[in-house]
This record gives sequence, structure tokens and C-alpha cells, in this order.
Amino acid sequence: MPSTVTGEFLGTLILLLLGNGVVANVLLTDTKGHSGGLIVITAGWAFAVMSGGMVAVALGAPGELNPAVSIANVVTGVYPLATGLAHVAAQMLGAMCGATLVWLHYLPHWARTKDQGLILASFCNAPAVRTTGPNLFAEIIGTAVLVLVAGAIGARGVLGATPATNIGSFLVGCLVWGIGLSLGGPTGYAINPARDLGPRIMHALLPIAGKGGSDWGYAWIPVVGPVVGASVAALAWARLT
Amino acid sequence: MPSTVTGEFLGTLILLLLGNGVVANVLLTDTKGHSGGLIVITAGWAFAVMSGGMVAVALGAPGELNPAVSIANVVTGVYPLATGLAHVAAQMLGAMCGATLVWLHYLPHWARTKDQGLILASFCNAPAVRTTGPNLFAEIIGTAVLVLVAGAIGARGVLGATPATNIGSFLVGCLVWGIGLSLGGPTGYAINPARDLGPRIMHALLPIAGKGGSDWGYAWIPVVGPVVGASVAALAWARLT
Amino acid sequence: MPSTVTGEFLGTLILLLLGNGVVANVLLTDTKGHSGGLIVITAGWAFAVMSGGMVAVALGAPGELNPAVSIANVVTGVYPLATGLAHVAAQMLGAMCGATLVWLHYLPHWARTKDQGLILASFCNAPAVRTTGPNLFAEIIGTAVLVLVAGAIGARGVLGATPATNIGSFLVGCLVWGIGLSLGGPTGYAINPARDLGPRIMHALLPIAGKGGSDWGYAWIPVVGPVVGASVAALAWARLT
Amino acid sequence: MPSTVTGEFLGTLILLLLGNGVVANVLLTDTKGHSGGLIVITAGWAFAVMSGGMVAVALGAPGELNPAVSIANVVTGVYPLATGLAHVAAQMLGAMCGATLVWLHYLPHWARTKDQGLILASFCNAPAVRTTGPNLFAEIIGTAVLVLVAGAIGARGVLGATPATNIGSFLVGCLVWGIGLSLGGPTGYAINPARDLGPRIMHALLPIAGKGGSDWGYAWIPVVGPVVGASVAALAWARLT
Repeated sequence: MPSTVTGEFLGTLILLLLGNGVVANVLLTDTKGHSGGLIVITAGWAFAVMSGGMVAVALGAPGELNPAVSIANVVTGVYPLATGLAHVAAQMLGAMCGATLVWLHYLPHWARTKDQGLILASFCNAPAVRTTGPNLFAEIIGTAVLVLVAGAIGARGVLGATPATNIGSFLVGCLVWGIGLSLGGPTGYAINPARDLGPRIMHALLPIAGKGGSDWGYAWIPVVGPVVGASVAALAWARLT
Repeated sequence: MPSTVTGEFLGTLILLLLGNGVVANVLLTDTKGHSGGLIVITAGWAFAVMSGGMVAVALGAPGELNPAVSIANVVTGVYPLATGLAHVAAQMLGAMCGATLVWLHYLPHWARTKDQGLILASFCNAPAVRTTGPNLFAEIIGTAVLVLVAGAIGARGVLGATPATNIGSFLVGCLVWGIGLSLGGPTGYAINPARDLGPRIMHALLPIAGKGGSDWGYAWIPVVGPVVGASVAALAWARLT
Repeated sequence: MPSTVTGEFLGTLILLLLGNGVVANVLLTDTKGHSGGLIVITAGWAFAVMSGGMVAVALGAPGELNPAVSIANVVTGVYPLATGLAHVAAQMLGAMCGATLVWLHYLPHWARTKDQGLILASFCNAPAVRTTGPNLFAEIIGTAVLVLVAGAIGARGVLGATPATNIGSFLVGCLVWGIGLSLGGPTGYAINPARDLGPRIMHALLPIAGKGGSDWGYAWIPVVGPVVGASVAALAWARLT
Repeated sequence: MPSTVTGEFLGTLILLLLGNGVVANVLLTDTKGHSGGLIVITAGWAFAVMSGGMVAVALGAPGELNPAVSIANVVTGVYPLATGLAHVAAQMLGAMCGATLVWLHYLPHWARTKDQGLILASFCNAPAVRTTGPNLFAEIIGTAVLVLVAGAIGARGVLGATPATNIGSFLVGCLVWGIGLSLGGPTGYAINPARDLGPRIMHALLPIAGKGGSDWGYAWIPVVGPVVGASVAALAWARLT
């Protein structure tokens, strides 16, 4: 197993630990961040992306942390299928471990939270208005913006350096902050299959106090939408540059 | 058509997709960001500017994303009229496409929003208090600050590098964040004719559920104000430096 | 008159235009930013400091924008008294012009604001609890932290570069953001004589609709406190490094 | 006593002055930042970390500002026990001085605050739900993330530079912003023994108007948790890289 897999695993673990952590802090009962609002949730995810990216890069990984990006890299020929599958597996495992740590970190708060929807939302996404076409479209657009702008960050690098720098990770965090604020309204911006599916699996498996169903009917949208959006955007970006 | 036109087009598209996106998220009914407040809207526009700028620059464009800036560059002799007109056309088209994507992205939410003013505000600006002179003055001042400070960023570059870097785009995003917080109170800081007129045209053309009139009586102010403010500031800055 | 005076003038003008602008946006009636809260006010001042600093530096000035800092530079022998006085005069004039522009920018909103205290607060500071000793102490501490940490930014420079860079201005903006959040509670963090006295003079002189008294009894505290705090901190920092 | 001790002392003083300052601003009665919310508190701590780190680094210290990090550096053999103990002593003394300055800075506000818990919270942490195991676990996880991600920042440096730069301090500030948003829910993220124990000692010693007990029963958790979390994470990181 190449060492980049360790970086993708640990980076995605930290992405989900911090990302789902801020959702739990805002939504669960009796936390210190209860009702913190959208600026808190989107800022938390931004620093989660920054932190996970810096850890992955420091371990020699590309810091994709996102199966949709890894699959797009296979589609556009950046690396072979085997590498992409290894990245995806590491990302999924990291996301599942990160979500599990959030469950343990907020352990006393699940039983106090009486709304099953808020418990589920601390693991995975649900749409604001449930309508398949628009929900899928929103995930495609959000992920396409992620890939286009991250491509731009990489194209110029930072001050001419390679994209794999701390400042690059900070800028990608700011980008995801912006996507959350601007495009998160309809579906909560999964824009990453591992971010939604990994924690959803753990929601189903873990003995979470007071949990309800895992909403499997919606689960395919934050997988298919990001994969389509990332691949289309990566192909378009490759043609443009 | 020079390739910088592609960059101005795609950059302005992303500027409006993310910029109008955050307004829709905060104003439309049943979104996840409903009632997010001023810090959410101004932060969203900041990351929109940063993202659009980075994309334009990565494609070899200057990343103006703003006809007032392009016209000021013609006025001060940075490039000939033909280049300026090509930039303006690309920016207008990009803004119209970006606003259309916001309409599609938030598709289920327009019919649920009963206030026609909130629907219009997700496309273009309206003044807080409708008074021609002060509204025009506010757009002039806001755009003049944009051009002066962006000129300062470019004058020094970033760490001595050319202004066309990722960090330069981040700093311009912070600048627009500040203009929104500080000078957006009277008119909502269009400070960019494409940002207001492009989406206003789409508001008139698109079959948006529940929409009212497009407020054409106000439409000239966010065009004339920014063009005047940018040109005066660019001339002043050229004399000072 | 040396050219650095132009930079200090224009930089302080932009500092006050954006800084007092965000206060007016939050406090005055019927603005788009009404009731935006502390995060809005402190973020607005942060980007005001960043923007004013970048403009001053681009024009060849040190970007002090603060008579307390200029006086401390005289006290510690960085430059002679005449230079310090020229800087202070430019900063005071810039602050008065900036405050005047805020009055014009928000022109329709003064008459609609029925609380004279909110109008005054859009020009200069008032303490949360009026007690001379603690108010003076708070301004001393706030300015001392400003000078110590700004000294640290300058000591290392940015990546080994001189402090007069765009990123340096951004970091000083973040520093003032932090001072506002953490130390602004008792007096509203003037930490700068020009920021308080310049606009207070304009509040007295301008025909502002609905204004009350200019609270001259408090005016000496945001002058004396910052001058003492900056000088003590600059002397201490010079001994430490 | 080596000069790095001065840097750790002054840096930790500024960390607590700004960090506890923002808590006092939000929680105490009649301050300008009253009820500012989680985004204010976490942003304030972020800029406190950035500022304290830049001051420490400018004085030649490593800028740990955290006994858990210093002990982890002894455990992993970065420096000998004597250096670690000197750092811890300087950090504790700095934290006590910083908390004392916050008391003086907000002097008129303690007597006006009728809730003893809010007064204590302006000095040290209390858990959201008091349960030993989960509280300890939350402090371990929060500090482990701090050490892992700070290790990643240091591993790559900033643009290839050593980690002891201003931008490195800014990024660590962003990291602590993220930890506060995401992992601060259960215990308020001490993640630093000096941050909690130093101010708690001062709460017991100082004649604070209206204070209650110092909650010594909880005091060991923000000491033991961070020391365990930092040491385990530092050992793990040393193996990974």
C-alpha cells in the first residue's frame, strides 16, 4: 500500500472529525456551540478542509480527501485506476473513523437530543427540499465549482510554488467556506461521497442513543452528484488550460 | 477573440454563481442558510471574488471581473478600447450565466418565497433608502475604494511578486468583504455594473416562479456609479504613484 | 512635505471611511447591515486597517495610521520629532476626511436614527461603563498589545521580507480584529487618537441631522491612553529585542 | 534562564489576555461584546493564538505557549527535561499574568455580573455536561488534533520556510479557530494546561467582585487530558513522518 494512502486516510479522518464535529456542536442539545448558525458551520468545515489537507500533504499524499476528485483524476488520466481505488478506500475508511470519533467526542449529547433528524444531520446530509432532480443538480454544481477553483489554485500554485503547500490548503479551505455559504442552501453541500456515505454507514452501525433511520433513499445523490460534477469539471478544466 | 476573454467570462460566472448564491441562500424560503445575516452575505461575496479571480488569472486573464475596472483601464490607457469592450462583453455574459445557474441551483425555493423583493434581491441590488443622489454617491465611493486599494495591492504585489497570484485574489476578496461590511449599508454595494445589470436582465427574461418587476428605474445607478467611481479613482491613483 | 505624508493621509482616510462605515452600517436606522453585531463591526475594522495600511505602504509611507504609534516612534528614536508631527497631522486630517465621507455615504440614514448616542458612536467612542481609571487603563492595554504584536510582525517580517508587504497589512488587520473582539469590551478600542479625536471634531462641526453633543468630557481618554500605551510598549519592546 | 523563556512567558501572557478577554467581553454584563456568540469567542481565541505565537517567535522562542506541547517535546526527545520545565514555568506564569490583566481590563464589569459561573468562565473551563470519562476524552482528542495538524504545518513549513514565521502563526490560529468550532462543544477546548490552571489559580487568589468557587474538582481534566493527547499525538506523528 503506497504511503499516500496513509495521508488520504488520516487527512479525511481529520476532515470528518472537525467537519462533523462542528455540525454536532451546533445541532446537538446542551453543547457549548448550540445554535451557532451558518457562519459557524461553514467556518468549521473550512478549517476542517484546511487541517485535513495540511496533514495529508505533510504525509506525502495529494490531499484530495474526496473520492469524486480521485475518480476525476482517473477519468482525466492523472493516475491509473488502481491508485484511484486505493485513494477512495482510504478516504472512505478515514471518513468512517472520523465520524466515529465525533460520536465518542460528543458522547453525552446524543441521548439529550430529542430530534432524530439533528442526530442524522451530525453524520450525513439531507436536502432542504426533497426533489431528486434539483438535489442532484445542486451537488453537481457545488462539486464542479470545487474542482474548477481548486484547479485554478493548483494551476498557478502559490507564488509559483507547487500547490501542495500550507497556504494552498488554507485557500482550498476558504473555497469550501465559500461553497458552503453560497451553494449549500439546497442540500448542505456534501460535494464529497466519502463525507456523506462514510458517516451514513457509521450512523447505521453505531449504537447512537436516540437515533432514527439512516435515510438510505437519499444516499445515492451525494455520491453520484459529486462524481459527475467533479469529472465533468475536471474534463472541462483540462480542455481550458 | 483573445484567451483573456475566456478567463473574464468564467471568472465572472463564478463570481455571480457564488455571490448571488449566498444572497439566495440567506433570503429565499426553506434554504439551509435562511436568515444567515450580513456576515454570511459579505463573507460569501468575499470568497466569490477570490474564487472568480483565481479562475480568471489561472486562464491568463487579468481577473477584473468588473466592467467599471475594464473601462477605467481604457480611460487610463492600460489597454485599447477594443480590449476593454471585449472584457465588458465577456463579463456581462458571464454574469448572466452565473445568475442563471443560481436560479437553477435554488430551483425549488423560488415558488416557496412569497416576497417578490427577496426574489429580486437574489439577482440585483435595491437601495435601502431610495434617493438618487446619495445612492449614486454610495456606488461611486464604494467602487473608488475598490480601485484604490486594489491598486495598492497591485503596486506592491505580493511579497514582490506580480499581483496575479492566488494570495492577491485572496486579498482582493478580503477587500470586498470589507467594502460590503462598511460601505454596503446604503445600496448593497453593487460596485460592478456586470454584477447588477447582468442578473437584472436574467430576472426579466427567466420564468422565475413568483417573481415581480425588475425595478428598471434603479438599474442605471449601479452602472453609472461604479464606472464614475472606478475611473476617477484610477486617474487619481495614476497621479499619486 | 515628504511623500510619506500623502500615504499616511490617504491610508488613515480609508481606515476611517471603512472603520466608521461599518459602525454606521450596524447602528444607523434602515441600513442593510443594521444590527449586524460585534463580529461584523470587528471584521469591518480589520479590513479597514488592512486596506488603509496597504494604501499607505504602496505610496511609500510606513502605514502607521495612528498618532500614538508615530509618537512612540519619536520617543524610541526611530525618527525625529518633525517627522512624527508631520505624520500626526496627516493622520488627523485623513481621519477627519474619512469621517466626513462616512457622513455623506450614509446621508439619508442620520435623520432616520432617533438615538443621538448611536449617531455619535458612528463617529467616536464612548465607554461601556464611564469610570476614568478603568477606561484609561483599557485604552493603554489595548494599544500596548497593538504595538507589541505589530512589533513582532515587523521583527520577523513576512517570510523574511520587510514588514511593508501586503501580507503584513493583512496580519495587522487580523491583530486589530483580535484586539476588538478581546479588549474592545470596556471602551470600544479606540487605540488610536486620530480614530477618535478626528471624527469627534467632525461630529461637532458637520450639520448632522439629529445629532446631540460630542461628549468632549471623554475625548482625552482615547488620546492619552493610546499615547501612553504605545510609548510604554515600544520602549519595552526595544529593550526585549 | 534561556531567552526562549521570555518569549514563552510573554507569548502566553498575550494568549491569555486576548483569549480570556474575548470570553469576558461576551459573558460579562454591560460590555460592548455582550452575547457575541460562538463565532466571536472562537475568532478571538484564534487571533490570541496568532498574536501570542508571533510575539514568542519574534523573541526567539518556539511559541509553544502550551505545557502539553512542551511535555510532548520532552517525551519525544526534542529537548531535555530541564528545557521543558523552564517552558512550562514560563507558560504558567504568563497565563497567570494574562488572566490578571483581563481582570483589570474588565474591572467595572465583574460586580455587575450576577452569575458566578460566567465570572469563572472568564478565567477557566467548565464542561457542558459533567461526566469524567467523556470530558477527559474530549480534551485528549482536541489536543491530539492540535498537535497533529501543527506538526503538519511544521513539517512542510510555509512555502518551504521554517515553521517559525508569521504565516505559520496565522495558520496555527486558524487551526485553533477550527478546533474551537468543531471540538469545543463538550468542554470548551482548554487543550492547554496553562490556559486553564493558570487563570483558575488567579480566580482563587484575586479579589474578584462577586466571584464564587473555583471548581477545583474539574481542574485536573484540562491538565491531564491535554498532556495525554499531546504526547500520544506527538509519538504517533513521529512514527508517521
